[in-house]
Amino acid sequence: MEETFVPFRGIKNDLKARLLCYKQDWTSGFRAGIRILAPTTYIFFASAIPVISFGEQLERSTDGSLTAVQTLASTALCGIIHSVFGGQPLLILGVAEPTVLMYTFMFNFAKDRKDLGHKLFLAWTGWVCVWTALLLFLLAILGACSIINRFTRVAGELFGLLIAMLFMQQAIRGIVEEFGIPQRENPQQTALQPSWRFGNGMFALVLSFGLLLTAIRSRKARSWCYGTGWLRGLIADYGVPLMVLVWTAISYIPVNDVPRGIPRRLYSPNPWSAGAYSNWTVIKEMVNVPPLYILGAFVPATMIAVLYYFDHSVASQLAQQKEFNLKKLPSYHYDLLLLGFLVILCGLIGIPPSNGVIPQSPMHTKSLATLKHQLLRNKLVSTARKCTSKNANLSQLYRSMQEAYNEMQTPLVYQLPSTLGLKHLKESTIRLASSTGCIDAPVDGTIFDVDKEIDELLPVEVKEQRLSNLLQALMVGGCVAAMPLLKKIPAAVLWGYFAFMAIESLPGNQFWERILLLFTAPSRRYKVLEEYHATFVETVPFKTIATFTLFQTIYLLVCFGITWIPLAGVLFPLLIMLLVPVRQYLLPMFFKAVHLQDLDAAEFEEAPPIPYMAFEDLELEGRTTTTMDGAEILDQIITTSRGEIHRMQSPNTSSVLEKAYSPQIRQLSPSLTEKGLELSPTPSPAPSTLGQSSRDSSSS
Amino acid sequence: MEETFVPFRGIKNDLKARLLCYKQDWTSGFRAGIRILAPTTYIFFASAIPVISFGEQLERSTDGSLTAVQTLASTALCGIIHSVFGGQPLLILGVAEPTVLMYTFMFNFAKDRKDLGHKLFLAWTGWVCVWTALLLFLLAILGACSIINRFTRVAGELFGLLIAMLFMQQAIRGIVEEFGIPQRENPQQTALQPSWRFGNGMFALVLSFGLLLTAIRSRKARSWCYGTGWLRGLIADYGVPLMVLVWTAISYIPVNDVPRGIPRRLYSPNPWSAGAYSNWTVIKEMVNVPPLYILGAFVPATMIAVLYYFDHSVASQLAQQKEFNLKKLPSYHYDLLLLGFLVILCGLIGIPPSNGVIPQSPMHTKSLATLKHQLLRNKLVSTARKCTSKNANLSQLYRSMQEAYNEMQTPLVYQLPSTLGLKHLKESTIRLASSTGCIDAPVDGTIFDVDKEIDELLPVEVKEQRLSNLLQALMVGGCVAAMPLLKKIPAAVLWGYFAFMAIESLPGNQFWERILLLFTAPSRRYKVLEEYHATFVETVPFKTIATFTLFQTIYLLVCFGITWIPLAGVLFPLLIMLLVPVRQYLLPMFFKAVHLQDLDAAEFEEAPPIPYMAFEDLELEGRTTTTMDGAEILDQIITTSRGEIHRMQSPNTSSVLEKAYSPQIRQLSPSLTEKGLELSPTPSPAPSTLGQSSRDSSSS
Repeated sequence: MEETFVPFRGIKNDLKARLLCYKQDWTSGFRAGIRILAPTTYIFFASAIPVISFGEQLERSTDGSLTAVQTLASTALCGIIHSVFGGQPLLILGVAEPTVLMYTFMFNFAKDRKDLGHKLFLAWTGWVCVWTALLLFLLAILGACSIINRFTRVAGELFGLLIAMLFMQQAIRGIVEEFGIPQRENPQQTALQPSWRFGNGMFALVLSFGLLLTAIRSRKARSWCYGTGWLRGLIADYGVPLMVLVWTAISYIPVNDVPRGIPRRLYSPNPWSAGAYSNWTVIKEMVNVPPLYILGAFVPATMIAVLYYFDHSVASQLAQQKEFNLKKLPSYHYDLLLLGFLVILCGLIGIPPSNGVIPQSPMHTKSLATLKHQLLRNKLVSTARKCTSKNANLSQLYRSMQEAYNEMQTPLVYQLPSTLGLKHLKESTIRLASSTGCIDAPVDGTIFDVDKEIDELLPVEVKEQRLSNLLQALMVGGCVAAMPLLKKIPAAVLWGYFAFMAIESLPGNQFWERILLLFTAPSRRYKVLEEYHATFVETVPFKTIATFTLFQTIYLLVCFGITWIPLAGVLFPLLIMLLVPVRQYLLPMFFKAVHLQDLDAAEFEEAPPIPYMAFEDLELEGRTTTTMDGAEILDQIITTSRGEIHRMQSPNTSSVLEKAYSPQIRQLSPSLTEKGLELSPTPSPAPSTLGQSSRDSSSS
Repeated sequence: MEETFVPFRGIKNDLKARLLCYKQDWTSGFRAGIRILAPTTYIFFASAIPVISFGEQLERSTDGSLTAVQTLASTALCGIIHSVFGGQPLLILGVAEPTVLMYTFMFNFAKDRKDLGHKLFLAWTGWVCVWTALLLFLLAILGACSIINRFTRVAGELFGLLIAMLFMQQAIRGIVEEFGIPQRENPQQTALQPSWRFGNGMFALVLSFGLLLTAIRSRKARSWCYGTGWLRGLIADYGVPLMVLVWTAISYIPVNDVPRGIPRRLYSPNPWSAGAYSNWTVIKEMVNVPPLYILGAFVPATMIAVLYYFDHSVASQLAQQKEFNLKKLPSYHYDLLLLGFLVILCGLIGIPPSNGVIPQSPMHTKSLATLKHQLLRNKLVSTARKCTSKNANLSQLYRSMQEAYNEMQTPLVYQLPSTLGLKHLKESTIRLASSTGCIDAPVDGTIFDVDKEIDELLPVEVKEQRLSNLLQALMVGGCVAAMPLLKKIPAAVLWGYFAFMAIESLPGNQFWERILLLFTAPSRRYKVLEEYHATFVETVPFKTIATFTLFQTIYLLVCFGITWIPLAGVLFPLLIMLLVPVRQYLLPMFFKAVHLQDLDAAEFEEAPPIPYMAFEDLELEGRTTTTMDGAEILDQIITTSRGEIHRMQSPNTSSVLEKAYSPQIRQLSPSLTEKGLELSPTPSPAPSTLGQSSRDSSSS
């Protein structure tokens, strides 16, 4: 995207591009059929559970002004509107932890003011939302999103880790509070006697750790050895909500003598109970806010605007990484404009606004990539089967598969259908066929094993459509009605889920991986090189990595610390936004440009593992293919829950790479282990070739 | 060992062989210096913690007649005597779960008899011990242990799994009981109110699962990436007692409002409290037992004799597996005779007798192998360093290392020092040197990397001595005095430890691995082949494996079930012993001899993994050497806690094997995956070659 700040140009371009594929966004979604429910439910749970917990958290920090009903309503309302009118339907909207923090700061400010107080709090936040929306309009119109490329890894990952820390903090705080007396309850009741409080706290530990450990385990179900394939797939896809169900069921086991209220369950008023609607008419009270406070609302509004500008854009950016091979264009400016409208709407009806959320948005894209993979696979396998039964030869087979593949492509006006993926397929089969001298013979299983080859060689593509987003938003809306059911979930299970979200967001975050690298014993650093690793591990000296990581860690701790300060904490979004100029102007003064480029690659590039063992020959290599199914391969490609894609070559290309580089790798490797990864910054030809090649491929 | 039943011959042979090395048993132990403490403390904890728990269990099942003081005293007393006068000092003695079961059966019988009752229970068991001892004398004198080779895998592993089930049953029962009211306590006290009992049970869940999970984790510390090498080694060696300490400390965290008695801690009288000695004078009461009961004591005595004959011999057998390369001869007959004396001694002073225990005995040998490895390594490295500094060439280096190695060998009268291990070293260095053409040049790090090469090529040898056994028995004796300290351990931590012992005993048990294989999805069975696996996986049809495993499982469940029957349960040792003739006469009627031989190999033979990836060349292979330290390699060789050794070749020999067999392996492998491991029973030349070769090497 070019950096132009001509008013309205960004919005106009976004709208123009999106209108071209708007109809296709819907038709494509409906064509996917029943399978669309897998990504939909996956995202629904990832979206609804935190929003409910945030509601519970807000309810306590705002003395009940806002509850889970409001956070769910906001998420559903904004989600529905965005999925229909939004620019980028991959983006998931929801009430996020930073919003909860900002509302807590604002409530603490308002409740102590005589002429504002508890009563006018929501009316005042209405004004804050109005100001925020105006600022967002301004940013959208002036094309502020065109600097999105400057939001580099440093800023995004620091923000990601901050979110993870806030999640973990909430999990720990939640469990600790299970041992205490909740504010809203009558301390005389049986369940709040010291003895039962102790039991409740211990039960909470069991439930939360149970959920955490089983959820982490179930995510890896696809690589289990036991059980049939579909069962493993089911557990891997739906393991987390399944575990929420299981642990909720377990929480009902103790019945004898155990009083009501143990374990504590989700607290929220039913949406149809009296008083639940009191704050839906906030707009009427907004005129009662004293003018000085209306003006003063501008201060938190700037912070929220900065936060949303950053958060919304980064979430959108992460959902549209280059590695997903998206076909449709992004829509940063128009989405920011729409966000402005949503913020006003939420403010006027007294609910906290939603914005684009991490990690749910990239999770959404990832689940749609899995869907597209399954659809493409089914189509191509059936085509190939048909050809084989007709005794077609290899070039006929390839031609009809290419046709089937093209049929599945999004027919976009501005872009030719890509043939990227099937090239691999053609090359590998032809190579194999010519080596066995049967290129014109009818295709059979020995030359071309339909099931296996297709799985491995299909490119990553995403089912880009609006239906899953709309459906998940509607389901979140349905949660408001299902409140009596949701209230059966023990609060401790939610704390476990918070810890799970925090831990799941860590892998793939290079900032986190660098922190781990600092604690890795020098003699074990080779293990990092043996797996897929970021380029910087090879190209940047260890001391530079350490200094850079230390700086980032201190910055993170300052950001985290500032959220603890009662009123000044409202400024924390500024500190995160500040990281963008710091990266651009301050860091180059302390670090070499080449090192910064590798440590902070905007593209998420990864280097292949340095092979201690290399594939011996093609035949053996073919064998590995037989051992995984498609979804497991995709699991490996997209291993990180943040939704980042590891740049992994298919085994075929990687073995070619190995052959090309193996002399250099051998030359390079002993020096790596001896020096403990500290390569000289002006390296010998070997490492520079390696580094260069991966950089080239990422910029092509 | 030849099967002769000439009276006294076995005992005479054992004594003769042992006397030759008796002095060396002591001098060798003292020469090891301070390092002997590592295996000593390791075995002490593995021995003391279960014995304490068994004491707690006995105390409840015998209404306090026997407590942890008695079980500890028996273990210490028998341990000290055996370590000084015993034939095989690798064997660890202790009060075992089957003994506890037998005493429980006997107590339930005795307490209801009018003329026996609670009062004469111990006097009666005194008579049982006398009968048992007489039977053991008879067995030892008649040479019953010479049929030890018929105690095959089937019987040993079934017994091992039964022990694991009994451990796990005790863990589960213990945790469940934490929610209830213990018999001996006053149900009116605060800690036993329903509310506190709930809290206590939940706390017990936290403590026991906490111990279980952290203990399992800490055992794998050596392969962690974080922390320095010595810290990882320390955690791996002492992780389990460390975790007992940590979780005991955690159990003291809740103080506010929590009454005394939560969590429940180990219950045992102090040995110096009044009444603790009442049952040490049992011998005086033995005359009061009615003659009919003295005769009747013969029935349980036969069961205990059968049990001890089996358990003692199998424990001794597992501690002396062929793969440990022991230099000193076994001593089955003499040890059984000594056990008879120990049983009488324990019976007369009213404590339950000890016998050889699984898994502690093989664990003992394993820890001594680690010790010997470290000692050998230090010696050879310092020798090699000296040579390198003197600019010696390769043959000089090898000669002085061979001298140093011989110096470290046990100077036995009847056996020449082995040069097995260093042959590998010589071959590999000479091969490398001649390939680089510098065989006469002074040795430097490029040809011969002292630290790495030695680690990899040292043979498995065991520091066979008596000191560690004596010291650990003395330390167990010290536990009796340290009772006030031991009573600080929460009972829940012990239940966690029981579960840990059960789980740790599973890997390496082929019966267990076959059960897992039955549940492995057919498409994932290749994963078993990729790792070290038993020969039968390749040579026996899957259906036969399934039938055999099913038979064994039913037999196991019957054995387990019989322990639940109130009085007839006393017969369970008979059922286990019966497995020996069943294996020899019944099973061959249903299974082919070749299959039985592989499914029930008396030797613990393993086949190397079928290499999907093969080492590319020697240079790369040398690289893997640099990445592990000695203890980690040993960890890999001896992975199982039962102390079984996986027959793993050193990387050098295995790569030679691979080269020799690679055409066959490649030929074999696709057929394996296609047929889902179901090879035909009369196989093609390739698998038979493979199977044959491993069988040959094991019988050599």
